[in-house]
Amino acid sequence: MLPFDFQLRPRIVFGAGVIEQLGPLASQLGGKVVLVVSDPGVVKAGHFGTGLQSLEAAGLVVHSFHEFTENPTTDFIDAGVEVARRVKPDLIVGLGGGSSMDCAKGINFVYSCGGQIKDYWGVGKATADLLPMIAVPTTSGTGSEAQSFALISDAKTHVKMACGDRRAACAIALLDPALTLTQPYAVTALTGIDALSHALETHVTTRRNAISSTFSREAFRLISNNLSRVLDASDDLEARGCMQFGACLAGMAIETSMLGAAHATANPLTARYGVTHGQAVGLMLPHVVRFNGQHYPELYSELLAEIDPRESQHDAPEQIAQRVTEVVRKAGLKTTLRELGIAAEVLPELAADASQQWTGSFNPVPVNADNLLTLYQAAL
Amino acid sequence: MLPFDFQLRPRIVFGAGVIEQLGPLASQLGGKVVLVVSDPGVVKAGHFGTGLQSLEAAGLVVHSFHEFTENPTTDFIDAGVEVARRVKPDLIVGLGGGSSMDCAKGINFVYSCGGQIKDYWGVGKATADLLPMIAVPTTSGTGSEAQSFALISDAKTHVKMACGDRRAACAIALLDPALTLTQPYAVTALTGIDALSHALETHVTTRRNAISSTFSREAFRLISNNLSRVLDASDDLEARGCMQFGACLAGMAIETSMLGAAHATANPLTARYGVTHGQAVGLMLPHVVRFNGQHYPELYSELLAEIDPRESQHDAPEQIAQRVTEVVRKAGLKTTLRELGIAAEVLPELAADASQQWTGSFNPVPVNADNLLTLYQAAL
Repeated sequence: MLPFDFQLRPRIVFGAGVIEQLGPLASQLGGKVVLVVSDPGVVKAGHFGTGLQSLEAAGLVVHSFHEFTENPTTDFIDAGVEVARRVKPDLIVGLGGGSSMDCAKGINFVYSCGGQIKDYWGVGKATADLLPMIAVPTTSGTGSEAQSFALISDAKTHVKMACGDRRAACAIALLDPALTLTQPYAVTALTGIDALSHALETHVTTRRNAISSTFSREAFRLISNNLSRVLDASDDLEARGCMQFGACLAGMAIETSMLGAAHATANPLTARYGVTHGQAVGLMLPHVVRFNGQHYPELYSELLAEIDPRESQHDAPEQIAQRVTEVVRKAGLKTTLRELGIAAEVLPELAADASQQWTGSFNPVPVNADNLLTLYQAAL
Repeated sequence: MLPFDFQLRPRIVFGAGVIEQLGPLASQLGGKVVLVVSDPGVVKAGHFGTGLQSLEAAGLVVHSFHEFTENPTTDFIDAGVEVARRVKPDLIVGLGGGSSMDCAKGINFVYSCGGQIKDYWGVGKATADLLPMIAVPTTSGTGSEAQSFALISDAKTHVKMACGDRRAACAIALLDPALTLTQPYAVTALTGIDALSHALETHVTTRRNAISSTFSREAFRLISNNLSRVLDASDDLEARGCMQFGACLAGMAIETSMLGAAHATANPLTARYGVTHGQAVGLMLPHVVRFNGQHYPELYSELLAEIDPRESQHDAPEQIAQRVTEVVRKAGLKTTLRELGIAAEVLPELAADASQQWTGSFNPVPVNADNLLTLYQAAL
C-alpha cells in the first residue's frame, strides 16, 4: 500500500431536493452577501431561480454572474472578478456544470489573492485564504465539487491551466440529483463519459493509493451501472443519484490520484479543434486502457470485478475498452478521430502537445510524443 | 439512495513510518504545548517514546497522561482533565488503541467545555470548540481516529456513554501500520474482530447511505482478506497496513451509519461480566448477521461479493456468519456464552439491558427485549 495524505474538505450533502437547503447552509458559513456563478443554460433550466429563492429566503443578498460559456477562459474570470469587486461577496456559490464551478473557483482565486488566474496555475499557489464556496453541480461529470482544482483555459492559446490549492476546495458540495434531470441528452452523455474516464484514470495512475482506489472502484461501479440507464430514461431519479454520487466520488479520487493519458491526449483535441471534452476523452479512453492494460491488467481486473464479478478477468483491459466504446457509441458520439475530421497528418502535432500535458505525467506507463502518437494512430 | 450529510473531518496521513511526521504535523496545527494521552502498554512498546521524540524535535513542549486502562471510565477522564488544567495544552494527541484515543477525546470535551463527561453523552452537546487533536492508532480496531465519538464508561454503573460532537473529531489521523506490529496476539485478534464488526454493522443499519456503504464495503474487503494474515504472521506489514486502513474506513462509516444489534448485545456483556469488547462483539455478531440476514440478504450478498465474487450469494448471511465464527475461533476466542461462564438464567437481564442500548436503535430489524433474548439464546 502506497503512502497517502488526504483531506476531504467539502461537507457533502446529498439527496433529491437538497437544493432547498442552499440558503440555510450558506447562512451557516457566515456573511450576508453571496455571488452565484451560474451558466445561462442553468438559469434557463430554472435551477438558478430555485437556488436564488432559497438564498433570499435565508436573508442573504444575492448577486450573480452568468456571462461565460463551457471551458471557461481567462476573459470570463476577469469579467467575474470585476463583478466580485463591485459586490464584495462573503461567499461564492458555483451552481451549474463544471464550467460554473470552475469559473467560481477561478473568480475566487483572483478576487481573494489578486493578480491573474495564471498566477495560480499549478498546485498550492494561493497567497491568502479564499472565500468559502458552495458547489451545486447540475451535471454528473466533472467532480469539481469534490476537489481543489479549477480548470481555466487561456483565452488566447486555449491551453487548459489546472489551478489547484487546498484553499480552493469547496466548504460544501450540495448534490441534488433532481437538478440533473433537466440536462439535454448530449450533456448527460458527455459529462457521464467524463465521469467514467475519471473513475478509470484515477484507478491506475502512479499516484493511486488506498483511499483514491476506494473512491475509484465505487465510482466505476456506480457510473458503469447507471450511465446507460440515464441515457435510456432521462427521468430515472435513482440512476441520476448514482451518477451524481459516482461523479463526486471520482472527483474525490482525483484529489490525490490525479488523471492520466486519456486526459493528456484529449486536451489537445479540445484546444486545437474545439472537440468537447467528454467526446475527446471518451474517444481516447479505450486506447489508453488497452495501452496501460498491457502493463497493469490487474488494476483493470479489479474494476471489472465491480460490475461483473462472474466475468472472466484475464482480458479485463480489452473488455473495459470495448464497454467504453459501446457507451460512447450509444451516447451518439464519435469513436474515431477521422469521424471528427481529424487527419493523419496532424497527429504528430497533437502528440507533441499531449506530451507537454501535466496530467500525462501521472499515467502509469510513462508517455512521450512517440507512444502518444501511437495512441492517436490507434484512435484514427 | 438515501440522503446523507457527511463531513470527513480528519486529514488522513497513511504510511509505514509516518509517526516521524507527528512533530511537524502537530506544529502545523499551531500552539506550543502538547498533551499526549497514551496507555501504559503503548509506552512500554516504545511508541510513546517515538512520538515524544518527534514532537520535541519540532520544538514542542510535551506533557503526558498514562494513568488509565481499557474501556476508560469517568474517573480516568477526571484525572486526565486535572493534568490538562495544570499544563494548559494547545493540542491533544491520543497515541495508542481505542482507549487512548477515546480518553483523549473525553479529556478534550471536559477540559474545553467544562462540567463532566456525562454532560456530553449524546450527540452535539459540546458547548465550545475543542482543542485540535491528533489520533495515532497503534491497533486496527476502533476507528476512533475517523469519527467524532468518545466511548467512556461510567465508573460506577459501567454504562458506556457515547459522547459525539463534530468538534470532537480529530484534525489529523496519523495511520502508521508499523506501530501495529508490536500488538500482542490477543490485541490484534480482539481489535481486528471489532473492526470487522464495524464494517458488517455499518453496512446494514437504518442509517446506511451511499457514502457509508462505500466505506463499509472496502473496509469489509480489507479486513476479511487480512485479519487471518495478521493472525498468522504478526510481522506482515502489508497486511497490517490493510487492517489499519480498513479499520479507519469502518470508523468513517460509523460517522453517518452508526452501529447495530451486535454492539447492543455486546455492551451488556462487557458492563456486567467484564467481557472484552472484541470477544463480546465477535461472539454475538454471527447471530446478529443471521437475524438481520433474514430480512436483508442482499446487503450481505454485496459484502460477500467483495471477498468472493464467484461464491454463490443466495445464502450470503449464513456464509458470512460462519466466516466470522471461524475467525473468532482462529483468534483463540470463545464462540458461545457458556464458554464465558454465562448461564441461561441471566439472559433475560442481558436482553433487558441490551434493549436500552442506543446503538440498537439503528439495527435494520427493530430490536426489543424479546428478540434480543432470542439472539442471546442462540449464542448460549
